[in-house]
Amino acid sequence: MKASQYQAQHFLWSVQDGVGTLTLNRPERKNPLTFESYAEMRDLFRGLAQAEDCKVAVLSGAGGNFSSGGDVHEIIGPLTRMAMPELLAFTHMTGDLVKAIRACPQPIIAALDGVCAGAGAILAMASDIRLATARTKTAFLFTRVGLAGCDMGACAILPRLIGQGRASELLFTGRTMTAEEGERWGFHNRLVEPEALMDAARELALSLAAGPTFAHGMTKTQLNVEWDMGLDAAIEAEAQAQAICMQTADFRRAYEAFAAKRAPVFEGN
Amino acid sequence: MKASQYQAQHFLWSVQDGVGTLTLNRPERKNPLTFESYAEMRDLFRGLAQAEDCKVAVLSGAGGNFSSGGDVHEIIGPLTRMAMPELLAFTHMTGDLVKAIRACPQPIIAALDGVCAGAGAILAMASDIRLATARTKTAFLFTRVGLAGCDMGACAILPRLIGQGRASELLFTGRTMTAEEGERWGFHNRLVEPEALMDAARELALSLAAGPTFAHGMTKTQLNVEWDMGLDAAIEAEAQAQAICMQTADFRRAYEAFAAKRAPVFEGN
Amino acid sequence: MKASQYQAQHFLWSVQDGVGTLTLNRPERKNPLTFESYAEMRDLFRGLAQAEDCKVAVLSGAGGNFSSGGDVHEIIGPLTRMAMPELLAFTHMTGDLVKAIRACPQPIIAALDGVCAGAGAILAMASDIRLATARTKTAFLFTRVGLAGCDMGACAILPRLIGQGRASELLFTGRTMTAEEGERWGFHNRLVEPEALMDAARELALSLAAGPTFAHGMTKTQLNVEWDMGLDAAIEAEAQAQAICMQTADFRRAYEAFAAKRAPVFEGN
Repeated sequence: MKASQYQAQHFLWSVQDGVGTLTLNRPERKNPLTFESYAEMRDLFRGLAQAEDCKVAVLSGAGGNFSSGGDVHEIIGPLTRMAMPELLAFTHMTGDLVKAIRACPQPIIAALDGVCAGAGAILAMASDIRLATARTKTAFLFTRVGLAGCDMGACAILPRLIGQGRASELLFTGRTMTAEEGERWGFHNRLVEPEALMDAARELALSLAAGPTFAHGMTKTQLNVEWDMGLDAAIEAEAQAQAICMQTADFRRAYEAFAAKRAPVFEGN
Repeated sequence: MKASQYQAQHFLWSVQDGVGTLTLNRPERKNPLTFESYAEMRDLFRGLAQAEDCKVAVLSGAGGNFSSGGDVHEIIGPLTRMAMPELLAFTHMTGDLVKAIRACPQPIIAALDGVCAGAGAILAMASDIRLATARTKTAFLFTRVGLAGCDMGACAILPRLIGQGRASELLFTGRTMTAEEGERWGFHNRLVEPEALMDAARELALSLAAGPTFAHGMTKTQLNVEWDMGLDAAIEAEAQAQAICMQTADFRRAYEAFAAKRAPVFEGN
Repeated sequence: MKASQYQAQHFLWSVQDGVGTLTLNRPERKNPLTFESYAEMRDLFRGLAQAEDCKVAVLSGAGGNFSSGGDVHEIIGPLTRMAMPELLAFTHMTGDLVKAIRACPQPIIAALDGVCAGAGAILAMASDIRLATARTKTAFLFTRVGLAGCDMGACAILPRLIGQGRASELLFTGRTMTAEEGERWGFHNRLVEPEALMDAARELALSLAAGPTFAHGMTKTQLNVEWDMGLDAAIEAEAQAQAICMQTADFRRAYEAFAAKRAPVFEGN
């Protein structure tokens, strides 16, 4: 797959300098998700595993909001009329999107502004790094529509981001986490001014794309697979993973640059 | 079991509007626990799994303190004279209490004031949501009585609430965690004025009891069972769990209420 | 092993009042690690499991810095020329050092000042409790030398200390975590004045050494082994572990001291 040649149907997608930017783009409705956009995002993130021209991805929304989540009319209504096989097909599709975000080697940076709710909050949660603004309102509001908090991995991932107690409250009540809480609790990595959000995300993405991207992919893999490993197994896994990275040319490039007192130029191999 | 008809022997218990309130009630000694109160709480929480008239429970203490934990004279003294089979029977009983708190489908809200020590701190830790006051002093003080920090699940649960480093310090030193630390670290969900504590706990409990309680039970189940799952397994588990919730009438009720622009009335099925 | 008689070759080591103090001591280069110091630390921490004269250990660095990590000339240069078997032997050695720090029964207190980078940051992370100063700069900077963040267990341990999102950012970017961030995020347990650092670490170490050290060892074991246990298994494991501690003389000593209204004197058995 050439990520830079991909023509998105249900959102905006562009690749520049190795950074792919996905923009949810139905701003008049706060960028809700639909069956089609779920499926297309799942396929795009799956494809990124083979996309050599994209080293980092940024997830964002148009018009001052990230995403209001699954559309009430286009998703929730139909779901109330489905039989179990169709329901499972839907929850598998949404879960597969999170799996694909976690499984691709690219670090994913979520740029969050305004409404970040439901499946939108999940996309933020599934990303590797989150930048937000003071007006970002994040809500895992599944309970408000009669569902459980266990959506797309939230009961597993959210506690690891903000702690089991805070996650429990958010998932049981569905209440909004303010931007200030999100930063203080470790959900948002940083708050920036709304007008600086995309530049900050892009700057961070470019710096990661200029790094040892093969090694970044290994970092992401290990963050995923060590999730439920014992301590000794994790340390053994890292001994092997890091030994692999020590055979990359990027490792040698960094050493040679250091010896020559110049900045290294990484090539991702 | 009809929770509202249960007559407690070793603490106060009442059920109103679907909210059960358990009050440790030996205020003159800061509500210590005894062999009998451990056993009765274990049995009560086990019974809640079948109690249709109780949707949420609040755990509290009388007289401005939550609990001083296992009574020195009534518990620690006898333990020093027991043989291993009796000791194990005791630690299994206390562990079974935590298992029962985690296993019941009701969200458990701890309302914490004053002393919250030893087994009292464990009961707080095992709850789903914790409200406290500025004067709440929480101490996992097992080391002070010559024991290890690994009591009733503390080495597993406390690190997930406040982080491995802070939990390590508290468990090795037995020192008091102040209310301010507890809030900052994610142990307490919120601090309220002492005179407002029970009202705040009750208000939160009522709002959860008015929610989709079948779905709440699923949220709690998933928070428990995904504890040590891998990421992909957790996402698959949630796909199934949420699909089940999508077949509840509460999900349809929420959609219909939204379409009719009114607030949903959930019935827990 | 008599810890107090051990003559260290590649760092300073002394034992006083049951507290072992390891000081990295190449202050003119900010205490970098070498192949030899890695191996000797691994062996020392392995030996501590049998050292009855050392109950707690303090890890520190000389001259206002903790450690700059693996030396560029003495370690990174040679690594760039090694074949896989030698690379794996190296990463196994460094991983074994972390395993030995975790496996010894003594609580390990890191006293951190100034530079705390690379493998230095890992040694801090692997400790049980961390004291630092306002000028401590901690960097998991592996990505800066072309490597992955998965070094010596970092992708497993760091997320449990500071949360998955903050750990992801630090490991992908290699940026410095300030002392203030470290305290706020739960990496540092406390910040103290630089001139008070070693006294604070020593005071904490002495208080732990005066505690029920057999039980401390059990606390540490359970913090390790429950890392990836399910909730019920962890609670069962603690029922057994605590029952063992209830048969120690230290438990009886604490009770008798309480009954006699005096402070207990623990003996670690």
